[in-house]
Amino acid sequence: MKEVAIIGATGYTGAELLRLLANHDKVDVAYITSRKEDGKHVFKIHPHLKGIEKYKDLYFTGDIDKVDADLVFTATPHGASMDIVPDFIERGMKVIDLSGDYRFEDLSLYEKYYKIKHKGLPNVKIAYGLPELHREEIKEAQLVANPGCFPTGAILAVAPLVKEGIIEERIIFDSKTGVSGAGVNPTETTHFPNVNENINPYKITTHRHTPEIEKELKKLGKAKVSFTPHLAPITRGILTTAHTFLSKDVDREEIIKLYEKFYNNEIFVRVFSEEIPKLTWVRGTNFCDIGGFKIDEHGRLVVISAIDNLVKGASGQAIQNMNIMFGFDEKEGLFSVGLNP
Amino acid sequence: MKEVAIIGATGYTGAELLRLLANHDKVDVAYITSRKEDGKHVFKIHPHLKGIEKYKDLYFTGDIDKVDADLVFTATPHGASMDIVPDFIERGMKVIDLSGDYRFEDLSLYEKYYKIKHKGLPNVKIAYGLPELHREEIKEAQLVANPGCFPTGAILAVAPLVKEGIIEERIIFDSKTGVSGAGVNPTETTHFPNVNENINPYKITTHRHTPEIEKELKKLGKAKVSFTPHLAPITRGILTTAHTFLSKDVDREEIIKLYEKFYNNEIFVRVFSEEIPKLTWVRGTNFCDIGGFKIDEHGRLVVISAIDNLVKGASGQAIQNMNIMFGFDEKEGLFSVGLNP
Amino acid sequence: MKEVAIIGATGYTGAELLRLLANHDKVDVAYITSRKEDGKHVFKIHPHLKGIEKYKDLYFTGDIDKVDADLVFTATPHGASMDIVPDFIERGMKVIDLSGDYRFEDLSLYEKYYKIKHKGLPNVKIAYGLPELHREEIKEAQLVANPGCFPTGAILAVAPLVKEGIIEERIIFDSKTGVSGAGVNPTETTHFPNVNENINPYKITTHRHTPEIEKELKKLGKAKVSFTPHLAPITRGILTTAHTFLSKDVDREEIIKLYEKFYNNEIFVRVFSEEIPKLTWVRGTNFCDIGGFKIDEHGRLVVISAIDNLVKGASGQAIQNMNIMFGFDEKEGLFSVGLNP
Amino acid sequence: MKEVAIIGATGYTGAELLRLLANHDKVDVAYITSRKEDGKHVFKIHPHLKGIEKYKDLYFTGDIDKVDADLVFTATPHGASMDIVPDFIERGMKVIDLSGDYRFEDLSLYEKYYKIKHKGLPNVKIAYGLPELHREEIKEAQLVANPGCFPTGAILAVAPLVKEGIIEERIIFDSKTGVSGAGVNPTETTHFPNVNENINPYKITTHRHTPEIEKELKKLGKAKVSFTPHLAPITRGILTTAHTFLSKDVDREEIIKLYEKFYNNEIFVRVFSEEIPKLTWVRGTNFCDIGGFKIDEHGRLVVISAIDNLVKGASGQAIQNMNIMFGFDEKEGLFSVGLNP
Repeated sequence: MKEVAIIGATGYTGAELLRLLANHDKVDVAYITSRKEDGKHVFKIHPHLKGIEKYKDLYFTGDIDKVDADLVFTATPHGASMDIVPDFIERGMKVIDLSGDYRFEDLSLYEKYYKIKHKGLPNVKIAYGLPELHREEIKEAQLVANPGCFPTGAILAVAPLVKEGIIEERIIFDSKTGVSGAGVNPTETTHFPNVNENINPYKITTHRHTPEIEKELKKLGKAKVSFTPHLAPITRGILTTAHTFLSKDVDREEIIKLYEKFYNNEIFVRVFSEEIPKLTWVRGTNFCDIGGFKIDEHGRLVVISAIDNLVKGASGQAIQNMNIMFGFDEKEGLFSVGLNP
Repeated sequence: MKEVAIIGATGYTGAELLRLLANHDKVDVAYITSRKEDGKHVFKIHPHLKGIEKYKDLYFTGDIDKVDADLVFTATPHGASMDIVPDFIERGMKVIDLSGDYRFEDLSLYEKYYKIKHKGLPNVKIAYGLPELHREEIKEAQLVANPGCFPTGAILAVAPLVKEGIIEERIIFDSKTGVSGAGVNPTETTHFPNVNENINPYKITTHRHTPEIEKELKKLGKAKVSFTPHLAPITRGILTTAHTFLSKDVDREEIIKLYEKFYNNEIFVRVFSEEIPKLTWVRGTNFCDIGGFKIDEHGRLVVISAIDNLVKGASGQAIQNMNIMFGFDEKEGLFSVGLNP
Repeated sequence: MKEVAIIGATGYTGAELLRLLANHDKVDVAYITSRKEDGKHVFKIHPHLKGIEKYKDLYFTGDIDKVDADLVFTATPHGASMDIVPDFIERGMKVIDLSGDYRFEDLSLYEKYYKIKHKGLPNVKIAYGLPELHREEIKEAQLVANPGCFPTGAILAVAPLVKEGIIEERIIFDSKTGVSGAGVNPTETTHFPNVNENINPYKITTHRHTPEIEKELKKLGKAKVSFTPHLAPITRGILTTAHTFLSKDVDREEIIKLYEKFYNNEIFVRVFSEEIPKLTWVRGTNFCDIGGFKIDEHGRLVVISAIDNLVKGASGQAIQNMNIMFGFDEKEGLFSVGLNP
Repeated sequence: MKEVAIIGATGYTGAELLRLLANHDKVDVAYITSRKEDGKHVFKIHPHLKGIEKYKDLYFTGDIDKVDADLVFTATPHGASMDIVPDFIERGMKVIDLSGDYRFEDLSLYEKYYKIKHKGLPNVKIAYGLPELHREEIKEAQLVANPGCFPTGAILAVAPLVKEGIIEERIIFDSKTGVSGAGVNPTETTHFPNVNENINPYKITTHRHTPEIEKELKKLGKAKVSFTPHLAPITRGILTTAHTFLSKDVDREEIIKLYEKFYNNEIFVRVFSEEIPKLTWVRGTNFCDIGGFKIDEHGRLVVISAIDNLVKGASGQAIQNMNIMFGFDEKEGLFSVGLNP
């Protein structure tokens, strides 16, 4: 039995780690931290966990120095992670960081988009935690940078195309996200009357997930990424519409075969040759569903991907990474059916 | 390993049985039936199940005579169940019927509210499948009538009060339900623009769950039930606001203690002394959350209950009943955390 | 042409006054105030007003002492109105106050429920601004206390019954409100993921609209009011389900006739003998739709009312009151069709 | 006073014509037709119109031969319009057709995308009813083809760019529509649980509005249109995200100036230089709001447009066209403020 800690366990990704780990047979949650909720019982902050035996003695601690675990999930804001991760690393713990702080090999890219001076990478093996592309590195890593929610859906949607070199460099991702992606704290952006009956584009050319998507795709082939996110009046899920342009003469069937082959052994990527993926199919699960694969008269190929932003887009993927790092079955704690409808 | 069959597996309750049974370690789904989808693979009709190993060889059959299983779930419409259940019973199978056909001991009540001539009860032990009130009968029964969704939330909300005899006879249930309760087939009632931005009361004094609630409460004490359901723009969940009137001089703390004692050993009923239950806390789970317990200046006591109508209100409760009938751990296949948010 | 001012014009009720007055032919908006937005153009804060000629020179002022108008709408928070209304009154202006500060003749009731020490009523004619019950007083008043949103829907739903004396004293209002009623400022309560897919009961026995409803109904007959509000995942509208108990032997048709007679000359109350009112029918309008009128087996009579909380429940009713105070046609600026669907 | 008829007045666009014409001072609705609802009063089918004096004697007729009016709105399905429009034309009436039947000069394009054999164009002046581009032709026309909902939002979003020749030929429209666009009849597509908590792409490369957008843009310059619509869980509105690629060296300010100049005299197009348009700003109105105007690192220019699909996208634009055809003030009956929030 391994022990894990969750740093910053009051937010949505922290709560989602707790939801999923409740069903994980090989891991105990030893610590959950929060400066603000120090001393409170987990059921007080997350009443929906009530009755989960595993957590009946779990209290928040405000003192992260006390944390001692085999693996630490840092569900901390961008900029805050790099203040605390190095210490866990030094103390020999494995770390999966859910912030953007360790996603960039090129720190100048991070600094440009996050407007934060980076404090440097620890001198250990670091992996970008997208198992479908970096499983071997994740196995070896002491520190895993868990991918952003939009990048997960976007990269998986086109990776086979980029790697195979059958599309033009220019790729447009038009993504629609649920509001839980904005976090647990109320803002004008998440105020119900502002969201409801609206579809709100935001940071339409400047979202910091843009360079994250592009740098990963460039590892596979050529890619110039244009990305526009929209806030939709739903709670969970990211639906990404990838508009790409074919540069080679391939047809729909060949493309589907390419995807089926590329994701052949991936248990969390489901390729649909006919149906268009729906967010409710993946709701609550670690699946990334991919479909569409239609070509229009001007050579545009449309690929659709659907994920649950809190699961495959955050905490589920973090657990998948943990399973890989510990050598567990990759599905452990993550086996569930989408809450549809 | 027991084998079960699902009669009418294209609808929401059928799909929900499949979702939950995917995680049930002691049961295999041997048959799923549908006249219309005869021969089709389960993933074709329920694409969100794709990738579930357990179902990779599961096809719909249109011929219910072929069905041979230890237990049959009949997820068939009211009136249709009584055409098929007797045959399964005669062939020695256990049956859990999700329709209203076997919920009434007094068939005249059924006929009055369902406007259908009843064909009579089979001569075996029949139980009303609300485990919190009828666990012992369920253990013995060959046929279990799974409760209606509204009755589950309503009865559990006030059972301790009625049994203890501390409220007046007159009880008002004002319930708000998600649209999945209306089933998988599109109608004017479920047409998105008719539901969205509305709260639609319906059958405001004549809903057929009214006598079901009343006859169950009358087994515990005196009760005159007034019930009004509302369709809310949400997919899953029933929030029931029970307006009762105290007939004895008890305070909030005594009432909470009464509930905690009444549901002391019930793993699927969670009593909240402070928080008001939220539908998202129980979403996807078999929990019935109960809270509120406030008394106003005129002696009205308000109790709130929250369930997922497709789980505790239908398929989850059916599996709970099955677990009891088979002597399994009651939680088997039903252990999960609410999908919150 | 009369001139009006709106004190506190950045919130929803202020914006709604501007929306409606854009179509009012006999009134100009001379002042809009906001401490925070002093000097800003109205289109900057309310971009949806862009293009409205009438407002092209309208700027926020932070200095309410400058305000000089025939009538002042105070769209200020409870407790803040009584700091500023007396001065407008003294300077001879008519005032319509949208807060709760002047709704109670019995100030002890106000102090009990609002937990604020009241500073006293100005020595002028004050009316409770529900035109259907107090039109003559409104005509004479210098200060009108605009009713609360819940009270408007609740009182109109049962006024004919209470006045006619055909129901028991005990009346239960189970109301469902849109989130705009919570105002323009984001809070945990209005955070999208907390609202969406939920129906959240709140202040289930202690809402301060309870005594407002009761004291008005008591003017008509006997009434003990029990009231529970619920926050629904919609933006606009209050649907009130009134559960009453008949004390006389009347049937559905007699009740409908009673309502039709009671509201015979009321242009903003529509009585539906067959259909159950829908929130989208009244959306954006000053209508209060009333229907239901069903009696159950235990003598409970259910009446349903629907209003737009920002219109008949706030700004529309304020304009209706203004029209009465100025002797205008009561419909002026308020004639519109519900935005359905 | 002109008299108009609405053919097919039971659907959403018919109801919306009635809603808007209720406030039109120069037009009476003389006929509303429906085969199914022959003889019924308009309030029976559209209860939200109750109380509108103008319609108190308006009944549905099933016999379109009786229709005699100055202008006929044909709110009939694609393919059905061409069966009835020629007769109205011959009898000398003006016609505004809301179907796709008369939108294409090149009938082969219509036949290819609508899979219907076209019966030919009547020999009168026909205009494509987008006033911002075709006002002069509309003035002269006897038959106006009212534009599709998606084309209205898409064309207006990029018309200035295409005309000015500063973008590449390839234009991608990623549109998100409310469900009212799917019409009043319930289908699997509009079933609440299928829509809610989802964003459903559909006809991702084959929607028949694609050639309509392209042929109109080609009148202004070069354009190869790629279009993908998505069904969003909202009732009204189309948000279009136009992804274009600059071919000339222009900056954001120049682009905004270009739009402001292009739409300078257009009362129903609002250009926002800073804010990103929101659907609730245009809800219930005839406005098309345009904003965004951001350029990313790869030269992609993003423009966002927002319309109410039932107003500027259908019935409002039809009334705007009628006003032009009759020489009325173009705003008559269409002056209103967006229902925000």
